[in-house]
Amino acid sequence: MTAATRTRLTPEQRREQLLELGLELFAGHTIEDISIDRLSEEAGVSRGLLYHYFGSKQGFHEAVIQRAADDLVAVTAPPEDDDPIVRLLASLAAYVDYVIANHAGYRSLVRAAAGGNEEVRGIYERARGQMIDRTFETPGVEVFIEDTPITRLVVGGWVAFVEDAVLAWCEDANGVSREELVRLVTQALPAIVETLD
Amino acid sequence: MTAATRTRLTPEQRREQLLELGLELFAGHTIEDISIDRLSEEAGVSRGLLYHYFGSKQGFHEAVIQRAADDLVAVTAPPEDDDPIVRLLASLAAYVDYVIANHAGYRSLVRAAAGGNEEVRGIYERARGQMIDRTFETPGVEVFIEDTPITRLVVGGWVAFVEDAVLAWCEDANGVSREELVRLVTQALPAIVETLD
Repeated sequence: MTAATRTRLTPEQRREQLLELGLELFAGHTIEDISIDRLSEEAGVSRGLLYHYFGSKQGFHEAVIQRAADDLVAVTAPPEDDDPIVRLLASLAAYVDYVIANHAGYRSLVRAAAGGNEEVRGIYERARGQMIDRTFETPGVEVFIEDTPITRLVVGGWVAFVEDAVLAWCEDANGVSREELVRLVTQALPAIVETLD
Repeated sequence: MTAATRTRLTPEQRREQLLELGLELFAGHTIEDISIDRLSEEAGVSRGLLYHYFGSKQGFHEAVIQRAADDLVAVTAPPEDDDPIVRLLASLAAYVDYVIANHAGYRSLVRAAAGGNEEVRGIYERARGQMIDRTFETPGVEVFIEDTPITRLVVGGWVAFVEDAVLAWCEDANGVSREELVRLVTQALPAIVETLD
């Protein structure tokens, strides 16, 4: 019996525990490396248990990537605040910290999605879509950016800007501080929107 | 005898002619579809001739992608002008027109490079690097953007912004005109740089 099977947990709690272990893999490995075999080796969980909860290698792989994407959407949820810049700044600080903490997995997720891995692309595009929609609509507070065809191009492009700048910074900060980076990626959006007037 | 072999050309001219045919493939196909077999079928050029000039399937494939990247760097070369915005605007208008004319090939090149295809990635990164360096240094005219670690993050991220916005626009312009797009991607760079002050 492994440590994981000794504790009395409901099936749902057990599955959750296994997903959490999968997320630890995501933090430090490329998504190609997230597998039942790897988790079984690194966390001492039996392959049989993983198959029981996730059905297949593919099922486990998808569940971990989906959870990683859900976590990203959740941690970057903007706080309730009337000032759109305050909301954006908090959201991007959380994004930068997420990428720092999950660099290997996140970088490989962005690359796989861009490279046309259809499984990963679907998960990534949904998460990206949720974050983009959130930029336009924040219930109960003033409209920050009007939703038009050209502002959709701006926000989609700005997301690509943020991804590129933050991943490049993670690979070589070159003396730029986390605070300077967060300020840069936050201020870029209103700066680009203002050029449309 | 095909049309291509009837004309008297030097070996260099013949190779050039075959490369030009390869570039026509690049315009309308994904890079996975660029092959000696495809060119042989579509342009009526013998496989033997293609092997003679490019050595291997891989050799032809790389030569076409390298030429496409060289063409992109060449057509987007900024004109001589003292005003950095005039230079940038002309360069980006040429970039947008290049992407419109070579949409299928260019999109697949960006995706393959992002997805970690090492052959394509190397060619793409060199072209991207040349275009980024050009943004910092234009001989004989005023310095537009000072070359610092944070402006390197800005320009790299801005290139990702431009790629994303222009490819999204090519897929669905949604009423946004070419002129509005060119103005947007041009003005975005100085707007982001100004936030650094």
